[in-house]
Amino acid sequence: MTLLDSLRGPQDLKDLGPNELTSLAAEIRSRLISTVSANSGHLGPNLGVVELTIALHRVFDSPRDPLVFDTGHQSYVHKLLTGRQADFGTLRQPGGMSGYPSRAESPHDHVENSHASTSMSYADGLAKAFRLRGEHDRTAVAVIGDGALTGGMAWEALNNIAADRTNRVVIVVNDNGRSYAPTHGAIAAHLAQVRTTRRYENVLDTVKSALPRTPLVGAPLYETLHGIKKGIKDVLQPQVMFEDLGLKYVGPIDGHDQAAVERALAHARGFGGPVIVHVLTRKGHGYPPAENNNEDHLHQVAAGTDPLTGTTFKAAARTWSHVFADEILEIGHKREDVVAITAAMLHPTGLAPFAEAYPDRVFDVGIAEQHAVTSAAGLAMGGLHPVVALYSTFLNRAFDQLLMDVALHRLPVTFVLDRAGVTGPDGASHNGMWDGSISQLVPGLRIAAPRDAARLAELLAEALDDDGPTLLRFPKAPAGDEVPGLGTLGGMDVVARPQAGAAVDVLLVGAGVMAGVCADAASRLADQGIGALALDPRWVKPVDPALAPAARDARLVVTVEDNGISGGFGDAVARALREAGVTTPVVPFGLPQEFLTHDTRGDILKRAGLTGRDIARSVTEAVSERGSEDSVVGSR
Amino acid sequence: MTLLDSLRGPQDLKDLGPNELTSLAAEIRSRLISTVSANSGHLGPNLGVVELTIALHRVFDSPRDPLVFDTGHQSYVHKLLTGRQADFGTLRQPGGMSGYPSRAESPHDHVENSHASTSMSYADGLAKAFRLRGEHDRTAVAVIGDGALTGGMAWEALNNIAADRTNRVVIVVNDNGRSYAPTHGAIAAHLAQVRTTRRYENVLDTVKSALPRTPLVGAPLYETLHGIKKGIKDVLQPQVMFEDLGLKYVGPIDGHDQAAVERALAHARGFGGPVIVHVLTRKGHGYPPAENNNEDHLHQVAAGTDPLTGTTFKAAARTWSHVFADEILEIGHKREDVVAITAAMLHPTGLAPFAEAYPDRVFDVGIAEQHAVTSAAGLAMGGLHPVVALYSTFLNRAFDQLLMDVALHRLPVTFVLDRAGVTGPDGASHNGMWDGSISQLVPGLRIAAPRDAARLAELLAEALDDDGPTLLRFPKAPAGDEVPGLGTLGGMDVVARPQAGAAVDVLLVGAGVMAGVCADAASRLADQGIGALALDPRWVKPVDPALAPAARDARLVVTVEDNGISGGFGDAVARALREAGVTTPVVPFGLPQEFLTHDTRGDILKRAGLTGRDIARSVTEAVSERGSEDSVVGSR
Repeated sequence: MTLLDSLRGPQDLKDLGPNELTSLAAEIRSRLISTVSANSGHLGPNLGVVELTIALHRVFDSPRDPLVFDTGHQSYVHKLLTGRQADFGTLRQPGGMSGYPSRAESPHDHVENSHASTSMSYADGLAKAFRLRGEHDRTAVAVIGDGALTGGMAWEALNNIAADRTNRVVIVVNDNGRSYAPTHGAIAAHLAQVRTTRRYENVLDTVKSALPRTPLVGAPLYETLHGIKKGIKDVLQPQVMFEDLGLKYVGPIDGHDQAAVERALAHARGFGGPVIVHVLTRKGHGYPPAENNNEDHLHQVAAGTDPLTGTTFKAAARTWSHVFADEILEIGHKREDVVAITAAMLHPTGLAPFAEAYPDRVFDVGIAEQHAVTSAAGLAMGGLHPVVALYSTFLNRAFDQLLMDVALHRLPVTFVLDRAGVTGPDGASHNGMWDGSISQLVPGLRIAAPRDAARLAELLAEALDDDGPTLLRFPKAPAGDEVPGLGTLGGMDVVARPQAGAAVDVLLVGAGVMAGVCADAASRLADQGIGALALDPRWVKPVDPALAPAARDARLVVTVEDNGISGGFGDAVARALREAGVTTPVVPFGLPQEFLTHDTRGDILKRAGLTGRDIARSVTEAVSERGSEDSVVGSR
Repeated sequence: MTLLDSLRGPQDLKDLGPNELTSLAAEIRSRLISTVSANSGHLGPNLGVVELTIALHRVFDSPRDPLVFDTGHQSYVHKLLTGRQADFGTLRQPGGMSGYPSRAESPHDHVENSHASTSMSYADGLAKAFRLRGEHDRTAVAVIGDGALTGGMAWEALNNIAADRTNRVVIVVNDNGRSYAPTHGAIAAHLAQVRTTRRYENVLDTVKSALPRTPLVGAPLYETLHGIKKGIKDVLQPQVMFEDLGLKYVGPIDGHDQAAVERALAHARGFGGPVIVHVLTRKGHGYPPAENNNEDHLHQVAAGTDPLTGTTFKAAARTWSHVFADEILEIGHKREDVVAITAAMLHPTGLAPFAEAYPDRVFDVGIAEQHAVTSAAGLAMGGLHPVVALYSTFLNRAFDQLLMDVALHRLPVTFVLDRAGVTGPDGASHNGMWDGSISQLVPGLRIAAPRDAARLAELLAEALDDDGPTLLRFPKAPAGDEVPGLGTLGGMDVVARPQAGAAVDVLLVGAGVMAGVCADAASRLADQGIGALALDPRWVKPVDPALAPAARDARLVVTVEDNGISGGFGDAVARALREAGVTTPVVPFGLPQEFLTHDTRGDILKRAGLTGRDIARSVTEAVSERGSEDSVVGSR
């Protein structure tokens, strides 16, 4: 039995000596590499926090001292140390362990949301509750990366935590100079400055002497840190922003020096008020393929990664992100007024090729969706047409800015939402099942959803020709085959028709990729002798005026969307038909309005009934029931 | 003709000499006091920025250099200087001048949104657009109060602006130590420190010598500033956080010294990159009733304020805020676990009496709704039951936190939304017409809307007994008379019934205050011989299961809500009935899904058809049309 497997929980860590801790760190790294390579998941971030997480569990008393991991994708080591080693092989598998903290798994997990920059706010609230309840021995710990510090709510939290000197909050800044990609902005520059202080010289010495002790580590660590340091240390003076805010500051500490991290944390714990512990770590530490990967240090790897080389057999399928990447680059060549904004997601949103071609026209604002959107409003007021490329779920962070800053001013800003609909393995907070509803509320915003790659190109071009706000959404998936248009109805494309001469019993309207699902359902219905007309609305908001007359003649209207069922396309169609005086029943299909457990995208869609087979079956039942005119099938 | 009235626009300011500028400032103050006292509006903030606004227009070239006023309620002086003096008497009147910048009024106005902390993001985008378009002579100016600096997106913007050294952005920090109330938090403490630097000693001398020159000013200015200064100057060292971020910093400047402000702004304009100009102003400056008001320096005054004394005849009507204030205080006595959070709105949300009784249990987090909500999640995780008291429109800023931080963890946090529905004179961005839709999307969140004061007490108590997330909403209005319950149907209250023996033709379901409107409509329908059952659902989410059986027996279901028609209570009822197999037509009434121009609350509600008379009329038409079974009245 390995040392790791012998641990019953964090309490067993407290008796280990330095050599055992070194062995344990090596065992953890090896377990991380083998499991994550096989199952997919966040590799680089977890390799970077091995010593830090061991130290946290040796110094603090989890779960009595809650450890809140910001974003949560760096909690694998924490999982391995809190009695979940045996199940770690099920990581991110259907029915298995979550890739984020999960309260169902362990009392050591507190926060399941994986959106960034929240940890200090939770810790602030927890510490205030402890104080009010007289639990003066408890400390709330937030572990936050330097990337997440660029998010506005991190600053709101710092502002409040610093003002309350009696709160037992320890903020561990896990500074690896990167979020997904290198961290941008003034805060990052400030942290870089701090790294060049004299105190940092000592850290460097420690790092240097520690290198031989650390298993698997290569030469690049010292050289890299030293390289960064040399460039600017003589130019800039150390300036400690955190202390300006009145926060006690400890650091910077070499995050791979177990003893140094523990000393700093113990000092912070004993302080009895809010403290920042600034820990320098290296993403991918101890695993050369990650250390040597300069794009993202193997931030996240796919299933089936070769653990020896860190390389993955790349799927040949072209994703929606690839299609968008090609299109925006093409448009960039033709239109000088088109600029793009990303919130720390240059590569994943497909903006990298555009940024490479036109570096002045792409802005990475950090994990700062609010600023991304309002800054886009400013760009548009200044005469440009900005494209804001975000993950769908992160638009929630900027709903107010979309509504009040962009739409109230009717500005030509185009939102491109990747990962709309079901994403799957990343769990509840990564599914893009909200944007289709919140965007329905925004006056004057037009919403498009392409059903295939060709439509993405068309709709993006139309959006960029609009003088008002527009939004495109597409899923995290291969772009798939073309779904040919067979004709048009108003601005909508017909993607399936009843056999020649047959009447239209059912109108199927599928938003975006669900148009293909509707075409499939239509062909199944034809086999049952039910005439179905399947439409792709292309622009899902506003509802196409041609829909009402078509709906009036059908016996049933079915809408299908990969978005929560509440307040989305289906509700909008139902309302539009009602307002047009159409009484044909509308049956909306969508995702259940609940937080979805992690699973494969396909299985989640199946469970929600969003397949051609399920829809055809429901429609068949509904149409036969409609014979008696007194019942309609239920939607999700 | 006064000097003020003779100005054709900002260009005419450039030739004025010092004495003329002093006279102009006095004329502006006198115009502000007379008009705002008569019409209602923001008085204190505008009195504080007279010299600053004159200086901005003398140094910059508006509208070519856009001046973006954060929040916008301090733009009255700007309006008076940009050719709108003659119309200023119509301020905030129906059909008259907006109380915020308005693009329809003037090309000098750019941003109409009045939510805080956005100005620097707009300026960042504008400056980037100017650079890309080769308009190198243009500067984007953001004017932001110290209160708005506590908002997270202000920090996101600073982080980006500071990192881009070639952007011509001038950030004017209008530091009066207050947002609505005194600004809290570490940033405020930092600014207070800056005021104590040696540079500030010079400012104080200037202020002292300038006092006799400034009309209407009393002795308190110097004494107050000096008092603040003396307490801490020997303890703390000057530390300039902005410079830590790499931003060029100019200040602090006495904001009532016309020449000094102009020198600083001219210096900043000439710098050619991002600069912060830190200007110290005094809210209410030059108007003793405002200067001497320590609660809020007459931040906002009601119509009919006495311009000599600054006092308003207080309306006797008890508002919803008063009812909440009494209830939460009462609950606070009984339950030690109940704590409250406000985002810089202690008095307006009615939390002040609770805070006075239990100062340790109320947290004012600054203009920081995101942190407010996630910190509440932490408090709830720590065993307390937090009440987050916000204006409805500002919940938009924290939708992601409500969804992912509170609801995903199913935490007992109660949101109390004041100013839900139509607010009126503050214009589009203050109406609370979105919360009823975004909250419908949140899994597990229960939503209540009290129809009268007694129901607020009941529902607040029920919410605080819930172990999951809850939300209450009520409008900016007098709480009005009791709407008595005549019985119950499931968890709903019956507020009107058909006459004895008459059948229920129509089911009227009114959320919150709209239940009273439905009772009124029902009595009008009874006069027409139409039997109407009017219901107050009390809890509008989830839809009460007793509704479906009742709806099945009616000819028509009408829902009424003071929220946007898209995705709100009406859509939820329609969906619930459909899912229950009920085919009775549903006609939802609500606010049109558009940005509403400022007007009185009553007139906006009338225009939206949300009165008993309008609803009764629509229902009468619908029921008669329903005879032929082929049409339904349209909703908004």
